[in-house]
Amino acid sequence: MEFKIERAKQLKEKPVETKLGFGRHFSDHMLVIDYTEGIGWHDGRIIPYGPIEMDPACMVLHYAQETFEGLKAYRHTDGSIALFRPEINAQRLIKSNERLCMPPVPVDLFLKGIEELVKYEQDWVPKEPRTSLYIRPFCFATESGVGLHPAKKYKFVVILSPVGDYYPEGVNPVKIWVEDEYVRAVKGGTGFAKCGGNYAASIAAQVKAEQNGYTQVLWLDGVHRKYVEEVGTMNVMFLINDTVVTTPLEGSILPGVTRDSIITLLKDWRVTVEERHLSIDELMEAGRTGALKEAFGTGTAAVISPIGELHYKDETVIINDFKTGKLTKKLYDTLTGIQWGRVEDPYHWVKILK
Amino acid sequence: MEFKIERAKQLKEKPVETKLGFGRHFSDHMLVIDYTEGIGWHDGRIIPYGPIEMDPACMVLHYAQETFEGLKAYRHTDGSIALFRPEINAQRLIKSNERLCMPPVPVDLFLKGIEELVKYEQDWVPKEPRTSLYIRPFCFATESGVGLHPAKKYKFVVILSPVGDYYPEGVNPVKIWVEDEYVRAVKGGTGFAKCGGNYAASIAAQVKAEQNGYTQVLWLDGVHRKYVEEVGTMNVMFLINDTVVTTPLEGSILPGVTRDSIITLLKDWRVTVEERHLSIDELMEAGRTGALKEAFGTGTAAVISPIGELHYKDETVIINDFKTGKLTKKLYDTLTGIQWGRVEDPYHWVKILK
Ligand SMILES: Cc1ncc(COP(=O)(O)O)c(C=O)c1O
Ligand SMILES: Cc1ncc(COP(=O)(O)O)c(C=O)c1O
Repeated sequence: MEFKIERAKQLKEKPVETKLGFGRHFSDHMLVIDYTEGIGWHDGRIIPYGPIEMDPACMVLHYAQETFEGLKAYRHTDGSIALFRPEINAQRLIKSNERLCMPPVPVDLFLKGIEELVKYEQDWVPKEPRTSLYIRPFCFATESGVGLHPAKKYKFVVILSPVGDYYPEGVNPVKIWVEDEYVRAVKGGTGFAKCGGNYAASIAAQVKAEQNGYTQVLWLDGVHRKYVEEVGTMNVMFLINDTVVTTPLEGSILPGVTRDSIITLLKDWRVTVEERHLSIDELMEAGRTGALKEAFGTGTAAVISPIGELHYKDETVIINDFKTGKLTKKLYDTLTGIQWGRVEDPYHWVKILK
Repeated sequence: MEFKIERAKQLKEKPVETKLGFGRHFSDHMLVIDYTEGIGWHDGRIIPYGPIEMDPACMVLHYAQETFEGLKAYRHTDGSIALFRPEINAQRLIKSNERLCMPPVPVDLFLKGIEELVKYEQDWVPKEPRTSLYIRPFCFATESGVGLHPAKKYKFVVILSPVGDYYPEGVNPVKIWVEDEYVRAVKGGTGFAKCGGNYAASIAAQVKAEQNGYTQVLWLDGVHRKYVEEVGTMNVMFLINDTVVTTPLEGSILPGVTRDSIITLLKDWRVTVEERHLSIDELMEAGRTGALKEAFGTGTAAVISPIGELHYKDETVIINDFKTGKLTKKLYDTLTGIQWGRVEDPYHWVKILK
């Protein structure tokens, strides 16, 4: 598919790169591709960023038939622009769409769309340390009608946002609230899919955590309310004695690109990784005894986010004196090093845009 | 709040009342009210039905912060127009919004909005038997930004659709597929809320049921995969011997207006109603022995939908020879009788528009 291009009449002023925040600014153009049953994906175009007209009965506004992805473009010191494992995002979007009975966006189309848009908007990839261009591909049902069925029309859209650190804290440890009332996802549901409904359902717990002075929520499983799942919008890992423990992929958590990359690094470094059920009781006990050496969340937005404190019911445990752990720091430095081109990339994860 | 009115330049041709289907036609006007944090609900207006402009980063398209309601306006033989217990829908929307951290639409504003819009569009309330005007109020986040947090801006919109029977089958029994792979909701999640994410998550099972020749899905609970929850977009009731058994309201199912009305009727008729956990094994066994006399779904769209067949794993049970049961029929006649003004309304459920 060739994309038509319509240039914005006026370009925006770029925001100050040291004050970007997360997801508040958007670039001048976006990619839009339509889907119609019987025709497939068609009319790919790069057009000025701006409002989309939606029929009030369009299904996404009623039944949330919507999925998304999140990845970043990184500016290397030689000026080139890199993506990080974008094909994994493409494949995950296919799985998300399948769960919601939405047509797959073919991997090639996903990659071509992102690459052409980012190249067209290359001035929007910031240069300051720790900044990047957040890429938000998303898909939604546009068919009108209030009967519930898989829609016959969709849009795939990509928008771009230059970003700085995800947390105002930077890479410093955050305080985590273990949630025992609200549930994010359950096996048989949509936990493994990156679909809007999971996020809408999660806001209440996030608000509750913040009201209690915590930055993010640690979710427990929906069946036993006992096993650790994810941290807010990140996967989560715990260094217990010499072993890194993380939740297995069994349908209720998102299979993170960062999670997979970290596991690969750890295995290469001969650190034992256990993908297994970890009960909150075992975790808190490890916190009490000091067996819990380090803890961190992993995700595209914050990359690695050290956890300094866990609060569960009436108990609080502090991890590593509320300091970023050695392994956490090494993982952060290595992974961000690869992403920004400062560290060798033996895994061929980085894709330089030509 | 006074609503501004902008009349459509051209009115649509009304669809043929005997061929309405469900949710395929929309009236000439819609109600829109905006919400801004710090200001509240403002700028209520009745305007021509038409596209809404949405920023591509608006939160509803990414995080599904969206809720809705569904109720009907009924044409009585004297020409007047009735709503059925609309205040229950108003209260339920408040609960849904609360779960998703969205601002409540006050009951009075909800009622006034619906009443004024329906009166303005009164020619759209059809007159043919079994037809009505389906009213779809919905709420969604319009703030732009890809960081996850409760939005500060929303819209409340009401659209209207003249409808006939929900199922092409009419009030004849339907075949139900008991789903044991996909899960709709779990306690701690959003099952009790009428929010888009629940419906997006449910489509896959619905498609699977249809592929197997069934009309709707019977959901089992997400924890034990054992207890009966709801049927597609209806609550469900079973007449086992002389007792009507239905799922209790414990957070994972929608508290249906129809469910509540039916329970009231049954209790008045001195029929024992048990709101209790009913395992699929007990249900299938009751089907086998014939203790299961009748079964039906309850919901605004189909009112009462008799169930003629249940399929679970490799077993099928036929209920009441695949015929609409006596109690089911009496409930249908009474409830629709009250709604369409043919039967006395001792409960003051019906609200005639003045
Ligand atoms: C719920 C959830 N878990 C985990 C992650 C981490 O995934 P990734 O490493 O691919 O960004 C995300 C996304 O950022 C998420 O939204
Ligand atoms: C999931 C679900 N359960 C039950 C119902 C029935 O609720 P009501 O009787 O209020 O229409 C609905 C809505 O129609 C629904 O969507």
